[in-house]
Amino acid sequence: MSTSTAGPPLLIDAAQPDDGSLTRLRFWREAGLDAVLVAVSAGAGLRATLAGIAAWHRRFAGHAELIAPVRSSAELRAAAAAGRTGVILGLDSPAPIGGDGNLLAILHLLGVRALPLSDASQGLLAGGCEETEDAGLTRLGRTVVAEMNRLGMVIDLSLAGEKSTLQTIAASTRPVAICHANPAAWQPGPGNKSARVLRALIDAGGMLGLSRDPSLLREGRACSLEAFCTMIARTAEAYGLEGLGIGSGLRLAPQDAASPTAQGEPPSGGAASAPAWFDDLADPLALRAGLAEIGFAEDEVDAIMGLNWLRFFDRVLVQDG
Amino acid sequence: MSTSTAGPPLLIDAAQPDDGSLTRLRFWREAGLDAVLVAVSAGAGLRATLAGIAAWHRRFAGHAELIAPVRSSAELRAAAAAGRTGVILGLDSPAPIGGDGNLLAILHLLGVRALPLSDASQGLLAGGCEETEDAGLTRLGRTVVAEMNRLGMVIDLSLAGEKSTLQTIAASTRPVAICHANPAAWQPGPGNKSARVLRALIDAGGMLGLSRDPSLLREGRACSLEAFCTMIARTAEAYGLEGLGIGSGLRLAPQDAASPTAQGEPPSGGAASAPAWFDDLADPLALRAGLAEIGFAEDEVDAIMGLNWLRFFDRVLVQDG
Repeated sequence: MSTSTAGPPLLIDAAQPDDGSLTRLRFWREAGLDAVLVAVSAGAGLRATLAGIAAWHRRFAGHAELIAPVRSSAELRAAAAAGRTGVILGLDSPAPIGGDGNLLAILHLLGVRALPLSDASQGLLAGGCEETEDAGLTRLGRTVVAEMNRLGMVIDLSLAGEKSTLQTIAASTRPVAICHANPAAWQPGPGNKSARVLRALIDAGGMLGLSRDPSLLREGRACSLEAFCTMIARTAEAYGLEGLGIGSGLRLAPQDAASPTAQGEPPSGGAASAPAWFDDLADPLALRAGLAEIGFAEDEVDAIMGLNWLRFFDRVLVQDG
Repeated sequence: MSTSTAGPPLLIDAAQPDDGSLTRLRFWREAGLDAVLVAVSAGAGLRATLAGIAAWHRRFAGHAELIAPVRSSAELRAAAAAGRTGVILGLDSPAPIGGDGNLLAILHLLGVRALPLSDASQGLLAGGCEETEDAGLTRLGRTVVAEMNRLGMVIDLSLAGEKSTLQTIAASTRPVAICHANPAAWQPGPGNKSARVLRALIDAGGMLGLSRDPSLLREGRACSLEAFCTMIARTAEAYGLEGLGIGSGLRLAPQDAASPTAQGEPPSGGAASAPAWFDDLADPLALRAGLAEIGFAEDEVDAIMGLNWLRFFDRVLVQDG
């Protein structure tokens, strides 16, 4: 596999927590992450969501030596070249849109470039993965998919139901993403994805962000690094390598988010609920080593660790302004 | 008086209605307006205000041959040079901010560059000109003034009470504006401004947008073009010329806004409630002629018709992004 960039390989994580602490921003730099997708907390209403977005823009201004806003793949490359972690803003819920298509353009103007079509429950756009029934992509959902295609935004189906997911993949004119999930064949559960979904996703040029969230891992926190990397190898054998990337998807443990951590320590988010090897894996070098150990060639490791996401963003994040 | 730009003089109106009809946009071009300040309707809540802002961004994309968004004085000059009418987005009320300072940064990100500190009634930031009591600039108001200074936004005091106005002029580190009003000495009434306010405003580098709103004119709709221009001459004698510009401030008559007008006709907004000479005055050539008739030199006419606003925007609209 040939790579399209010179210099060191890119490291991209498509599911990092909505944690803008200085500890977290420094951790991203120390880990060498070139870009992260952050899902701003959006469940508490429009005004609170806008406040969360405003907080990220204050951080972009106040910590320009660490992070940079990414609204296009060109901005992602520029951030990486400048030694900054590019932050792609997403929301963790489509709730603020409500039934109002205007909000999508407003979110785009505010730099938001990723949005889930649903929570785990039924929403106004699509069904959720924890519902027993999934009526599929709604009429409003189809309008939103078309508008996100036009604006150049990442459609995230991590928590969508199976039928909604398949219909969205078919309806979208750009590839879509499952930012954080693993194959259900490896570990069953509502958040992981069937072979049918993975085949349709990847055939359409979409991306699966392989997740280290214990609720999506075999044996949960007891899952080993080797088992995680072996799962990636099996997934690549089944679906090819091009649609695979990393989407850690570790949720903030509330008690951690509230407690201050000393500078230089690993960031608070996720550590409490992460598998035992998270502290190592959080250093992408360890994950790179794990993938090489399992038999991936160096250019394959580069693809999984960042270049596949970059190629996806090249097709989706097409508008700066 | 020397002018700072080459080419034809700029024409700027700091109070045009929130009317994005194609008829209105074409009228701006035909009238030769280089920039207008439009106050988006903001009284119906945050979501409706965001929808109104989104509508202007759709127009910027859809009618780029007629209008261009203006977030800085550099963008204003660029729009004028390209033969577009630059649109400075404002709101007609601070209501959407509520008590939440975060909203100001969000509005700025959305391209909003002007905001009144109050309606005619008491608000959360300042007192209104139609209240019998004015407690002055509030604590939140002082925070908002400082933030608008930092962000580079036009603080509009058109409808603020006298005490609030004087305190805002004193508190602001940048010049402020009264986008649409006339001297109360010429025509008394709550919307027009005392000598004390005008002196403080203009001494601080601020601008008065002389208004053709009948409620602010002597004899209302019966006010003649000559009487309006004579008032401008007297105001210039009393306060100097540098703080004077045009801010038509004509409100949309609802029945007009609802009824379609044929292409090429004057736009609907304001015509129904405007003085008899509005159709002429709407063509800035007629107003230029009226000012020359009353004895203004050509460079003085240029200053009142646009260059004074440009110099003000040079000091206030300092951030593109």
